[in-house]
Amino acid sequence: MTIEVYWGSGSPFAWRVLLTLEVKRLQYVSHLLQFSKNEHKSPEFLGMNPRGKVPVVKDGDFVVYESLAIMKYLDDKHPEPSLFGRSPETSAQIMMSVCECVSYIETPIVNIVRPIFFGGIDDRREEMISAASVLREEYSLLNARLTGRRWVIGDSITAADIMLYPQTAVLLRALGKEQAAALDLKLMPLADRFPAVTQWMKNVEALPGYDKTYPPHWRQ
Amino acid sequence: MTIEVYWGSGSPFAWRVLLTLEVKRLQYVSHLLQFSKNEHKSPEFLGMNPRGKVPVVKDGDFVVYESLAIMKYLDDKHPEPSLFGRSPETSAQIMMSVCECVSYIETPIVNIVRPIFFGGIDDRREEMISAASVLREEYSLLNARLTGRRWVIGDSITAADIMLYPQTAVLLRALGKEQAAALDLKLMPLADRFPAVTQWMKNVEALPGYDKTYPPHWRQ
Repeated sequence: MTIEVYWGSGSPFAWRVLLTLEVKRLQYVSHLLQFSKNEHKSPEFLGMNPRGKVPVVKDGDFVVYESLAIMKYLDDKHPEPSLFGRSPETSAQIMMSVCECVSYIETPIVNIVRPIFFGGIDDRREEMISAASVLREEYSLLNARLTGRRWVIGDSITAADIMLYPQTAVLLRALGKEQAAALDLKLMPLADRFPAVTQWMKNVEALPGYDKTYPPHWRQ
Repeated sequence: MTIEVYWGSGSPFAWRVLLTLEVKRLQYVSHLLQFSKNEHKSPEFLGMNPRGKVPVVKDGDFVVYESLAIMKYLDDKHPEPSLFGRSPETSAQIMMSVCECVSYIETPIVNIVRPIFFGGIDDRREEMISAASVLREEYSLLNARLTGRRWVIGDSITAADIMLYPQTAVLLRALGKEQAAALDLKLMPLADRFPAVTQWMKNVEALPGYDKTYPPHWRQ
């Protein structure tokens, strides 16, 4: 069966799915949607995901959306290498980290990134500063966990890494923009504040196939 | 091994774990923490979950927190009845519903429930009205999905139901409060607006062991 993936450049949720496919060395047909042309709101796309959100994976006739559900589906169908753990205990550790990413990291990142990319910094300065304070705490915890380790859980890449990496990369890109520098959110330079997180990002970026997942419009 | 569960009365996240334990007919030692006494911030509890949040499960020496991670762990350790599906496709459908609950339903429910229970309605009226509008859409989708069906996915209760039920019950309790009535959030009466959701709640409430999961302070 052919795996088709529908994604958008720079969506951290879609990036997770591309990384999953590459880590598992799976063949897939790539459909890069243009948000600017509203291709994620076309009738064909809404027929697959009524919410009109990327990523979507179509595997033969079976359609799955929501990044975590796709990652788990691909892991169930193609168990090597395992991304969700083989024992109940390892699986639980991975799932705890996945949940922590969703519950405590995703929202503050959105709250910082959105005004930087789409405008509205002046109205949201306080919310951004508060989000940055949460993230300093979260990345301190992550930095402690990653010190002396290559991956978040265990000895190889898992869903925990794949959940966190694209969010972190998007955050970094936003913080590198001119309009972010004046805010002094005290998250940069990442390599000084969170050296183990910085090294971990390099570990992800050294994966075979990583280049194929990199948001194309970031190269321009 | 003894399963110990640390929970708080009325926490929808903890309620999920109690439902999971009851559906699986597992024996467990219950530790009902008193939030008013800050028992979830005690050194002993923080030693298990540094975030100081319920639920936590201790299974022998192994500690797991975050409700979804606990549910998955219990399902891995005690596979009958299966809550996360047996085929990759069914598992994906369940996980999609789980993710939709987390991504689109949890936050608007918190945004409505918190001011009703803890005060601040006047300052948050607009946010509450906007959250109610999201929830009308979400519960319409859920109502359509549940029409003619007993459970959200497949023929028996799954993690999809267990994620959604406690959130919905907490929302209903909040909307039943005097201070909520004046807001006219257009979610009540649930039985008229969302009859299939109402019937599905009764299906959950008819489960053996349900009474043991009911928030004790709601009976007072």
